[in-house]
Amino acid sequence: MKLKMLYSFLKTDIEEIEKELNMAIDSDTALLKDASLHLLEAGGKRIRPVFVLLSAKTGEYDIHVVKNVAVALELIHMASLVHDDVIDDAEIRRGRTTIKAEWNNQVAMYTGDYMFARALDYMTEIEQPIAHQILSNAIVELCIGEIAQIQDKYRFDQNLRDYLRRIKRKTALLIAVSCQLGAVSGKVSPDVHERLFRFGYYVGMAYQITDDILDFTSTEEELGKPAGGDLLQGNVTLPALYALENPALRKRIERVHDVMPRGELESIISLIISSGAVERASELSQRYLKKALIELDELPSSRAKKSLRDIALFIGKRKY
Amino acid sequence: MKLKMLYSFLKTDIEEIEKELNMAIDSDTALLKDASLHLLEAGGKRIRPVFVLLSAKTGEYDIHVVKNVAVALELIHMASLVHDDVIDDAEIRRGRTTIKAEWNNQVAMYTGDYMFARALDYMTEIEQPIAHQILSNAIVELCIGEIAQIQDKYRFDQNLRDYLRRIKRKTALLIAVSCQLGAVSGKVSPDVHERLFRFGYYVGMAYQITDDILDFTSTEEELGKPAGGDLLQGNVTLPALYALENPALRKRIERVHDVMPRGELESIISLIISSGAVERASELSQRYLKKALIELDELPSSRAKKSLRDIALFIGKRKY
Repeated sequence: MKLKMLYSFLKTDIEEIEKELNMAIDSDTALLKDASLHLLEAGGKRIRPVFVLLSAKTGEYDIHVVKNVAVALELIHMASLVHDDVIDDAEIRRGRTTIKAEWNNQVAMYTGDYMFARALDYMTEIEQPIAHQILSNAIVELCIGEIAQIQDKYRFDQNLRDYLRRIKRKTALLIAVSCQLGAVSGKVSPDVHERLFRFGYYVGMAYQITDDILDFTSTEEELGKPAGGDLLQGNVTLPALYALENPALRKRIERVHDVMPRGELESIISLIISSGAVERASELSQRYLKKALIELDELPSSRAKKSLRDIALFIGKRKY
Repeated sequence: MKLKMLYSFLKTDIEEIEKELNMAIDSDTALLKDASLHLLEAGGKRIRPVFVLLSAKTGEYDIHVVKNVAVALELIHMASLVHDDVIDDAEIRRGRTTIKAEWNNQVAMYTGDYMFARALDYMTEIEQPIAHQILSNAIVELCIGEIAQIQDKYRFDQNLRDYLRRIKRKTALLIAVSCQLGAVSGKVSPDVHERLFRFGYYVGMAYQITDDILDFTSTEEELGKPAGGDLLQGNVTLPALYALENPALRKRIERVHDVMPRGELESIISLIISSGAVERASELSQRYLKKALIELDELPSSRAKKSLRDIALFIGKRKY
């Protein structure tokens, strides 16, 4: 089963978004265009545009309106990835070299800025002031989350709350806002768009926890980047946090640093996996998904609602 | 005569903006707050907020509304400085260490992102859709200008048009938009806010040309950073462009690179100054100022108009 199958009735509109994304990053400045295209062509699940469109379907759906929100949110997501790769000094993303690896940090910084600016450009097509307030709040939180991620690196004394707040800011809020803004563009009542915000938030939390699990359990081929990268770079994610509760494991994990031998890292990862930390992380992810589904239950039946539900279930089971 | 004297009747409102700027960058995340404050406290002329307020005075002036535009534009300007310092690898700005020097490139990048996000947050208080369109267009151009600046470094075959387009994007547009958005917040007619846009654009061009001249003619003490830095970093500004027309000087300038001995750079700067390039650059700056004043002439008399005129004249004469 592929993710795409879960919203096949949106095929034409998703293609439209893809075309629009290509137009969005077009520029007379070859360097900007090349760098942006480099990332765009690496693909990605386009999960934010999908959530935008499906949520808009709960109201007055107009592709000419809602596409602006969908393009804006994917561009903001991409911009944050580009800046993230500068921080993480990442060479590989989605199986391709990163912009900072292909060009340099400076180009990556401004390409991110440019994508972000283009996103705002698209958003100006949405006239409801509340849409802009929702988005700008989420972006402020996203930035705070990114700084927190720098500060929390290799900090092995952090707790579950630190982790949850970080992934909320880093991932869940933008997915929540994708759902909410899609719905706002469809002119639904606050009751509905706030519900879709919560749905997106819970799904986003589950999504990021799953991502963090997969960084331990997947192969390099599946991930499109080396496995165990989070821990190696000092990103203390949920499986690591649970594993740190085991004193013997804690001693090993605390010695992780970014230039340690590959074999040693792999042995620590195996220990974390066999410690039961991954199962516990999965359980928390499932709890968030359950909450997401409860939010959906209150919406009237529709094809879009079914798709949202199917995608949430898919995220709970995804293997890459 | 100090710049501040030219708009002394705005003193209370400018102080309000300063207070608001401090609140804008406040954050629970100490690193973000410290890094932002570091730049904010270095001061600056706050020329963009001044233009915003004065332009708003041509319409229905409400400090509670217009302050959001003023704060947003200063934050966007500051964000672009922070990212600029990453590109230029600058250690000193406004007589203080830069964020990237005090912390590192990563912190500088996210602090810039954060300031920018906070700016958007303030702008959401402005409900006119046109305000957001004007701003997002200007920001896209700003980003393109910044990438162009990287590409044009040490390119000694560029022409006047390349230079003018670059400073338009880098400086003039944001000043133009400060004037225009101030006016838009004051609900003036398009005729008036478009005129103020042109005024700001011409003033901005003159301002940047003057800045580029001062980088050659000022002392380190006046600049708050070493003189001749633009040329050393490969930023080919107007005096250098004019000097390149002289074949003997051209040969010397083309050999400029970022680790050349200080004495050699100083000798080239002296040659550029004595070549008449600075006078020619000044003339072009004056021509822009004249155009700016012509735009103002059409506005009805007011204290704000007089201030705008005085500031334009001041910029033409400023020595630092």
